[in-house]
Parts: sequence; structure tokens; C-alpha cells
Amino acid sequence: MAGSPRRAASRRLQLPLLCLLLQGATAILFAVFVRYNHETDAALWRWGNHSNVDNEFYFRYPSFQDVHVMVFVGFGFLMAFLQRYGFSSLGFTFLLAAFALQWSTLVQGFLHSMHQGHIHVGVESMINADFCAGAVLISFGAVLGKTGPAQLLLMALLETVLFGINEFVLLSLLGVKDAGGSMTIHTFGAYFGLVLSRVLYRPQLEKSKHLQGSVYHSDLFAMIGTIFLWIFWPSFNSAPTTLGDGQHRTALNTYYSLTASTLGTFALSALVGEHGRLDMVHIQNAALAGGVVVGTAGEMMLTPFGALAAGFLAGTVSTLGYKFFTPILEAKFKVQDTCGVHNLHGMPGVLGALLGVLVAGLATHEAYGEGLDSVFPLVAAGQRTTASQAMHQLFGLFVTLTFASVGGGLGGVLWRPHASQPLPPSPPPNRAPAEAALPGLPSGSPVL
Amino acid sequence: MAGSPRRAASRRLQLPLLCLLLQGATAILFAVFVRYNHETDAALWRWGNHSNVDNEFYFRYPSFQDVHVMVFVGFGFLMAFLQRYGFSSLGFTFLLAAFALQWSTLVQGFLHSMHQGHIHVGVESMINADFCAGAVLISFGAVLGKTGPAQLLLMALLETVLFGINEFVLLSLLGVKDAGGSMTIHTFGAYFGLVLSRVLYRPQLEKSKHLQGSVYHSDLFAMIGTIFLWIFWPSFNSAPTTLGDGQHRTALNTYYSLTASTLGTFALSALVGEHGRLDMVHIQNAALAGGVVVGTAGEMMLTPFGALAAGFLAGTVSTLGYKFFTPILEAKFKVQDTCGVHNLHGMPGVLGALLGVLVAGLATHEAYGEGLDSVFPLVAAGQRTTASQAMHQLFGLFVTLTFASVGGGLGGVLWRPHASQPLPPSPPPNRAPAEAALPGLPSGSPVL
Amino acid sequence: MAGSPRRAASRRLQLPLLCLLLQGATAILFAVFVRYNHETDAALWRWGNHSNVDNEFYFRYPSFQDVHVMVFVGFGFLMAFLQRYGFSSLGFTFLLAAFALQWSTLVQGFLHSMHQGHIHVGVESMINADFCAGAVLISFGAVLGKTGPAQLLLMALLETVLFGINEFVLLSLLGVKDAGGSMTIHTFGAYFGLVLSRVLYRPQLEKSKHLQGSVYHSDLFAMIGTIFLWIFWPSFNSAPTTLGDGQHRTALNTYYSLTASTLGTFALSALVGEHGRLDMVHIQNAALAGGVVVGTAGEMMLTPFGALAAGFLAGTVSTLGYKFFTPILEAKFKVQDTCGVHNLHGMPGVLGALLGVLVAGLATHEAYGEGLDSVFPLVAAGQRTTASQAMHQLFGLFVTLTFASVGGGLGGVLWRPHASQPLPPSPPPNRAPAEAALPGLPSGSPVL
Repeated sequence: MAGSPRRAASRRLQLPLLCLLLQGATAILFAVFVRYNHETDAALWRWGNHSNVDNEFYFRYPSFQDVHVMVFVGFGFLMAFLQRYGFSSLGFTFLLAAFALQWSTLVQGFLHSMHQGHIHVGVESMINADFCAGAVLISFGAVLGKTGPAQLLLMALLETVLFGINEFVLLSLLGVKDAGGSMTIHTFGAYFGLVLSRVLYRPQLEKSKHLQGSVYHSDLFAMIGTIFLWIFWPSFNSAPTTLGDGQHRTALNTYYSLTASTLGTFALSALVGEHGRLDMVHIQNAALAGGVVVGTAGEMMLTPFGALAAGFLAGTVSTLGYKFFTPILEAKFKVQDTCGVHNLHGMPGVLGALLGVLVAGLATHEAYGEGLDSVFPLVAAGQRTTASQAMHQLFGLFVTLTFASVGGGLGGVLWRPHASQPLPPSPPPNRAPAEAALPGLPSGSPVL
Repeated sequence: MAGSPRRAASRRLQLPLLCLLLQGATAILFAVFVRYNHETDAALWRWGNHSNVDNEFYFRYPSFQDVHVMVFVGFGFLMAFLQRYGFSSLGFTFLLAAFALQWSTLVQGFLHSMHQGHIHVGVESMINADFCAGAVLISFGAVLGKTGPAQLLLMALLETVLFGINEFVLLSLLGVKDAGGSMTIHTFGAYFGLVLSRVLYRPQLEKSKHLQGSVYHSDLFAMIGTIFLWIFWPSFNSAPTTLGDGQHRTALNTYYSLTASTLGTFALSALVGEHGRLDMVHIQNAALAGGVVVGTAGEMMLTPFGALAAGFLAGTVSTLGYKFFTPILEAKFKVQDTCGVHNLHGMPGVLGALLGVLVAGLATHEAYGEGLDSVFPLVAAGQRTTASQAMHQLFGLFVTLTFASVGGGLGGVLWRPHASQPLPPSPPPNRAPAEAALPGLPSGSPVL
Repeated sequence: MAGSPRRAASRRLQLPLLCLLLQGATAILFAVFVRYNHETDAALWRWGNHSNVDNEFYFRYPSFQDVHVMVFVGFGFLMAFLQRYGFSSLGFTFLLAAFALQWSTLVQGFLHSMHQGHIHVGVESMINADFCAGAVLISFGAVLGKTGPAQLLLMALLETVLFGINEFVLLSLLGVKDAGGSMTIHTFGAYFGLVLSRVLYRPQLEKSKHLQGSVYHSDLFAMIGTIFLWIFWPSFNSAPTTLGDGQHRTALNTYYSLTASTLGTFALSALVGEHGRLDMVHIQNAALAGGVVVGTAGEMMLTPFGALAAGFLAGTVSTLGYKFFTPILEAKFKVQDTCGVHNLHGMPGVLGALLGVLVAGLATHEAYGEGLDSVFPLVAAGQRTTASQAMHQLFGLFVTLTFASVGGGLGGVLWRPHASQPLPPSPPPNRAPAEAALPGLPSGSPVL
């Protein structure tokens, strides 16, 4: 017990010092590497004699803002369904996403958009950084309640790098299409988090099950998250696609897919519920699976019917996952998936990747016409057949699963020693500072 | 009592089977009829050698997203003011709207946009489908707490068809202008729901009055709905208007009208309140009447002063309606208008239709110039005088009231036998599955 | 005590009559002065043979909507963190902002956009009016709980005029740049409110300290405000800038600044918190300081690194302000700053103004190229050096502080006699009409 006050002090300083260190490091890297791109720079833009209407800002900023709402409002409130972790969910979402936006601007910039030694930023880099933050938050959902803010920041530090590399391998090296990120965001984020959660598994968390309940009001707050995710998902999937028909079609497909996953979720939830009752957890989550499942194929000529069919399948599978698979995952595989990311992001993400394989394989020159160049440029250029494109898509899924699993495992091994304290006592939840201390968190750590 | 378990089982299957049936039917109809339009289809868009900036997506998608927020966040949370029906309001809003989007794409497509046997979809059909969902949710507000999800889905099935026909008669056959839907959405949705509520009237609901109370937190949730409706209403009314000045002017008029209805609501609410106290129900609802009242005339040269005057009138009438007319409606006419849709959508909708008559009748070639062609094409083409346009507008209101009343009555007669069970016991509201079972709902039915 | 019922009746009529009077006055002024501008008027727009895509609506309306969300959702819910003032915050925000939009359209119109005796309105005037409403709400935050709705309306009446004059002096007479309003909105609104709060100081308010607590749910509602402010701040700062690179760069700078203020806030909050605990009040407010601090310089060539540095500084200063300066402000200066507007808007606003001085002073022809004309037109025209521009920026800050202080003092002197009643008893907060009566409010006044 000697040295305990000293250890408490060092734990106390953990989060502040880590924040300052990370912020200092990104600021220096920004100073050295990051520059306005030609649409954001006063001299470059005006020099080019452009029409303002051609500035990418006007094509992508409304979509960006919707994505931004999803990342901060959507994910934040969706995870607030646990009555004891409302503040933690919202606060740590805020912290993690803010850091991920900076760090991922650098990582993605180094990998994708270096020009003469500089990273050029603008609305597209903003969208890409938000996408990476989305993946980090999905993983956060899988370890919610297991670890504190400093550990989460370190998770974001690692995951952002792996996210960037995986994305680079898929999009740039393999020529895989994945505009809305069924693979790069949802599959990657889910399995990274689930493997991490598995490695951090501790049986005594079982005892804190009573902390994981939701209450009436926390469920209503969670619905804020659900609904904002649902309505803006068409913008999410379409934000980085080619302009014109590409963005238009992706938004439309996502919109239809979500309506069908909602109907599928209600049908299945009532079917498997006790006394035919609908389960709020299904509604809050599985209804969104329609957005995940068309993350890859939404940009393609999926057809409106295809969007409905895919969405319905995703809503169904996701609901069944909550009912039957989550308990098995915990009992057999020792993965505590509190937020059900396997059901919302994992399985629908994999399904979405497979749907992309299918739709790419079925693509014809007739169906895409001149537009083939923007959806499958390598096929249009004659460098690939559609069958080859489909195989590349499938290979992209395996690459993603590999990166996510190895990355999550690596993270777990690194932080396991720091996340093994017993549970602190849990005061009643009526006041913010008295929110249930996070189970397993070193007791001197900063918590919300 | 024999056969009771069997009946319970059949009730249990009611919602799942209905969802699956409806989803299956729309999916088949989508496969046969629904196709991407020329701005959404890769081959058609690229073939046309268009500039991306001309894609309708960039003119209408931001408005669409605001409308989407209103339908799902706005209506959903606005109805969450009842402490016992928070989940039902949000959950059933979600289910009904998701179904209505699909079904109305088909109905409106058959009536408005068939091309060589196919329905062509894009951002405009998305906006139109959301408008229909809005009308369905207005009607839902009138029967909130009276019926369960399966009955509500059947209501949406019928109402969407009648909505589409009424809209077709007004816009296509009569050449009536109604961009923001004072008639087609608000008047139609309100009176359809109120007549339905009248037919479903049961005196024993009186006894459940205590379930209809709001509490502090549920009122704050309702304010989320109110404020999002308020801020995005300019986008709602302007979403389907002609581009350029039409969209710009409609948004501006709606913005002014809402500020005035807010001031009118606060003035009247304090005036008629006990001890001069403001009533949250008035603020939550009547402040929005300014959006409804310029749903028809907002597109016209209403002038900024006209927008203020109309908004103020609507806020005033709506507040007085809550105070004096709602009790009469229930006592004398046996219409239980829990959410006050008559005050927010009914009366302001009719006022809005009459305002459209007035402003159309006062239109001059001088005031509209070349723009007359886009606002009143038949007048510009010399096929009608402004007086004739005004009479057509007025006739459109009567058509709408007729369709709404007959449709609501028809729906009530069809479902009345299924909605006459006594109230189930009401457990305390602290947990989701224990939310007050909906009064009058068959006790084996799925409820949130 | 004689005449007391009469006085109660007159107080009861205070709010209704004031609303009616103000609405009547603005309506008459609108009728006389306000006209659609050439992009909103059917005849003028169509006459000009414009392309619809050139209508300012499509460049600014998405930004406007984000600003609108911030004013009504952001400010409204941010102030709802006090459990006893949730309704007052939301309701009075609604009333004040609705009035300010109308009144400021007139004031700003008279000062900025008179054309042949008429005020021309369109999407730009909508944005400017929302900006003024923002300043009014910042001041409201400083007097929250001290005064009732009628006094607040009078405050808005005065403040809007002074806001318009100050803005006119800065932007039109002094040629100061302040797109996002570090000076005109944040500094002005904060010091106007703080001086007003100082003049209205009454020691007995001390006793009502227990009314100022937040609870778990009210803190979650406040987070709705925080997050919507955070995500849409890039739109706020960029809404009125020059199109093209100007809007793009401002949004990007604000986005980076906010991420850094968030990291700075978490670092400092954990550092100064008891036992290293994060404080929800810091997260809710100081994380936003990054938006305020780039309100002036965000439009300039601040560089992404500059945005990070500025944001981090602002988050840090703001958090330290909550911890150390707010108690001093109350104890020594008798300023009760319940919402901490000095920390969120005051200090970061002044810092933002100084940052603008610095970045303007460092501007070079090389860095801005042809774009110098749009950012610093007087420098580009050779009428000023950059040093002179910097001095004008600095002078603008002093002008703003003077207008704000004198205005706030004037307002306080005018209303002090009406705001000195003792506290009414405070019933429990479970029902809306029973919300804690506002301390210091005449007991017959309308309260929410």
C-alpha cells in the first residue's frame, strides 16, 4: 500500500498528460505537414479563376454536416441507453471523436493525399476523418464500461492508424469500392472492438450486470441517437461517392434499405418477443442495419428492389442476432457485447461486403453505360472483368477482418495490464459526479 | 374463454405477419415497377452529358433532409409529451413512417410519374413520400393511445392511397397550388384522423385520462420535437416548389410566419392561462401553426408583411383552440383529440387554404412578372383568370375535406370491431416493457 | 396592500400586451419597409434571366439552417442544464429569438440594406437576423433566473438596436472583418449581459443557490445543446463569408479549432477536478470555446495549425475560467454568471478578436494572392496596410466593449426597479406549471 497516494496522483495526471501530449504531437505534425488544398486556399482558388459553384464545398458540405451529426449526436446518444453510463457515453464519444478527427487527418493524409510533402485538406478530408471517427466509436461501443478515457484514447491512437492502412489497402491497392464503409468502417470497427473486448474479458464484470440496465428516460435519449442516425444515413453512404448520379443513387438506395430494415425489425422483434412485445433495444439498433448493409453496394446499380431486399434481410438478421446470438457470444466466446455492435455493425457489415461482391459481379456495361467509369473505373478501363472486381471485393473483406482482429488483439494485449482492477463501489446515479464509476477502471482515474 | 390461448397466439402473430405481408407486397411491386430516374441512373445520367451541378440532387437534397428530420424527429418527439406513451409515439412513428415511405412511393408513382410502365424515383419522389408520411403521422396524433400498431399500419395503408388520390385531384386535375400542403397534408391528415378518432370513440377512455398527463421530462422531450419542426419548416414548405426565387421566397415567408405565430402564441397563452401562466402545450404546438398556415400561399407573392400577419393569426387561433375548442370537441362532438391536431393542423390548414384563395385571387401580372409562369402556369398561359384560380383553390379545400372525412369514416368502420376491448391494467411507467399498455388495445397485441 | 389585485391584474397583462404591441409595431414597419430582394421576388428574379444555380439561396441556405439549429436547439438546450429552469430556458429562448429575428431584420435593414426606401430581404438577412438573436441569447444566459419574459423582451428590444449599430460601426465604418462574430456576437452579447447582470445584482439571490443545481437528466438535455452547437459551429462562422474558398476555409478552420478546444477542455478539466474527475459543466461549455475564438480569424489564412493552437488555448482558458474566475467574478465583482457566459463567450470572444488583430497584421500579398480582395478589400485596394487593418481590428474590439458595457448598464438602470421583488416560494419541479417561479420575478408575472 506504500506509494499509494503517489500512484493515485500519477493516475490523476494520466488523462491530462495524455491529452496534452497527443494534442501537442498532432499540432506539431499539422504545422509541418498540413496545408489548405486549392479549394480552401485564398491564393490558389482565386488564381484558378474558378466559378464559386464549382467549389467542392457546395457539393459535399451538406453531406458532411449530416455525417458530423451522426458521429457526435448519433453515436453519442445511441450509447446513452445505459442509465449508468449516459455521461460516459456522451463525454467519451466527444473526446475520442475530437482526437480521431485530428489524428486521422494526419494518417489518412500521409497515406492518401500527400502532395510535394504536404497533406492537402478540405471538405473531403473532413468527411474521411469523420468516417474514421465513426469506426473508432463503433469499437468504443464494444468496450463501453470496460475501460477509462486514457485507455480509450490509446485505443483510438492505434485504431486510427490501422483504419488508415486497411482503407489504403482496400481502396488504393486492391481497387475495392466501399463508399459507405460496410467493410472499412462497420466490419473493421466492430471486429476490432469485439476482439479487444474479448481480450479484456473479466468474469467479475458479470456481477455488474445490474449496472447495465436501461431506464425509461435513458431509452428515450437513446432514441435521439437512433433517429438521427436513421435519417442521415443516406448522407453518410453518399458523402464520398462520385458527384451527380453517384451521390443521388446512393442516397436513394440507402433510404429504401432503411425503410425495409425498419419493417423487418418490427416484424421479427414482435415475433420473438415475450408475449409479442416489441423490444426497444431491437428498434434502437436493428432498424439501422439497413444503412450498414448497403454501405458497399449502395453506390452501384443495386436497383430500388435490391435495396429493399437487402435492408429487410439486414434488419431481420440483426434482430435475431440480439435475441439469439449475443447471449451465445457472451456465454461461449466470452465476448461481452454490451451495445450489440456485432448485431448492428458486424454481421450487417459482412453482409454488406458480400452484397457488394454480388452486385459487382452482376454489373454489365449495359446497366452502367458511360457511368461504369465512375463506379468501376478498372472494369471500364478494361483492366478487370466484373468477376475479377467481385473477387477483389471479397478479398477486401478478408483483409479487413484480418486487420481488425489482429489490431484488436494487439490493443488488448497492450492494455490488459492496465484494465484489471476490481470494480469500485457504485454510488447512486442521480448526480453527474456520482455516476457509477466505470467498472474495472483504476479508482483514481478521471471519470465523468 | 375456450380458444383463448389460440386467440392470444393469433393476436401475437398479427403484427409480424402484417409487417411481412406488407413488406413482401411492396418489394414485389418495387421489383416490377420502380426504376431509377435519369438523374439517379448511371447510364442515363452520364449519357446525357450533364454537368453535375445540374443534378436535382444538389437543389433539393438539403431540403429533403430537413423534411426527413421533421417527419421522424419532429413528429416523433412532439407526440412523446405524454409520459405513458413516449415509446409508443416514437416507435410507432418510426414504423408507420417507414412503411408509408415505401407505399406512398408506389401510390404517388402510379398516379404522378409513370413513364412507359415504370415509376421513376429520385429526390423528388423521396420528398413527396415524406410528405405523405407526414399526413399519416398527423392522423396518428389524433388516434394516439386508441389503437395498436397493426391497426395503425392498416390506417396508413388506406390513408396513403386516399392521400395520393386527393393530391392527384388537386394538383393534376384541378391545377391547385399547394406546395407546403396546407390542404393536401395538414387539412387532409387532421380531418382523416379526427373522423377516425370520432368513430373509434369509447366512453371508457375517459377513465384513462390520468394516463394522458405529461411530466417535466416528457415535456422537455416534446420540446425537441417542437423546435426541430419550427426550425426546419421553411425547408418543408419550400422543398417541392420551383427552383430559384420560388424556393427562396417560400422559405423566407415561412420563416417570418413562424416568428409571428410564436409571438401570438405567447401573448394568447399568457392571456388565457391561469394566473397569467404560460401553458407548455400551447408553446409546443401553437407556435408551429405559422408553418401550416403558409403551406399554400408561402410560394406566392405573399409579402413579408403578409407572412407575419398570417402567422400571427394562426398562432392566435391555434392557442384559443387548445383553450376553448378542444374541450367542446370532446364533450359535444365526442372527438378525443389528445395531441390537439385540430388546433395545430386542422384549423391552421383550413386557414392556410383560404389564405391561398385570397393571395391567388389578388395576383397580378405586374407583381409576378415572368415568374407568373412558375407560380400560376395556367394563369400565365391565359387558360384561367386569377379569380378562376382562386375558385379552384377553394374547391380544392372542399375536395380535401371530403376525401379526409369519408376516408377517416371508412377506416373507423373497418377497424371499430378490432378496437373495442376494455383497458388492460396499467403497470408503472418506469421500465420500457412496463409502459402503460395502450388503452383499448387487445391485451395480447404487441406494444412497445 | 390596497390595489394589490389590480396590480396583479396589470402584471398579468404585461406579457400579452407587450407581445401584441411589439408584434403590431414590427408588422406595420414590415408593411411599410420590407420587400423581397431580387433573388426572392418572382418578377425581379425571372426578369434577370438568371440561372437558378446562381441564386444565393443554394450557397447559403444549408449554412443558414445549421445556424438556425444552433440558435434554437443549441442555445435553448444548453441553458436547460438547470433542473429548475428547463422550461424557462427553452421557452424564453424561443420567445426572445422569434422576436429578435423580426426586430433585427428591421434594425439591420435600416442600417445595412436600404434600397430606395426599402429593406431588401433574403437568405443573407435571415442569417444576419439569426446572428443578432444569438447575441441576445448569450446575454439571456447571463441573466437567466433574474428576470421574467416581459423584461427579457425589453432587453432584446434594446440590445438588438445596439447590436445593429455596433455591427454597422465595425463592419461598415471601420472596415473590420468579423465574419463569425467574435466581437459583434460573442464579446458584445457576453459583456452586455454581464453588465446587466451586475446592475441587477441582489444579495438575496444567494439564498436561491440551491435552485441552480443540475441533475442527471438536465445535464443530458444540456448535452443536446452542446453537441448541436459543436457540430454546426463551422457553418455559423462560415455562413456570411465570401463564397468559394472563403466559406470553405472558414468551415475547415472552425472544425479544427473545435477539436483542439475539446482536447484542451478534457485535459484541464481532469487536471483541476476533484480526484481527477471531469466536470460536466466544463465539457458542456468550454469545449465550444474553439468555435468562438476563430470567429474573426477563421476567414483569414489562419492555417490549420493556427486553428488547432487557437482552439486549444480557448478551451484551456475557458475551463480555467469556470474553475477559478467565475467564483471571483461573483464574490468580488458581484456578477452572478450562472451559465458562465464570461468563460464561453466573453474571454474567448476577446481572444478571438486579438487573434484577428494578429492574423490581419501578419497577412501578406503572397499568402492571399488574388484572394486578398475578398478577405481584406481595403488592403487589396491599397487604402490600408496590413498593420493599419490590424489596428482597426483592435479598435473594433474597444468599440464593441464600450457599446456592450454602456448598453448593458443602461438596460439595468431602466429595469432595476421592476426586478427587485423578493423571491416567491418555490414549489417542487415535477410539473411544468409548478416549475420554480423565477427568483426575483414579480409574483403575478407569467412564468413557464
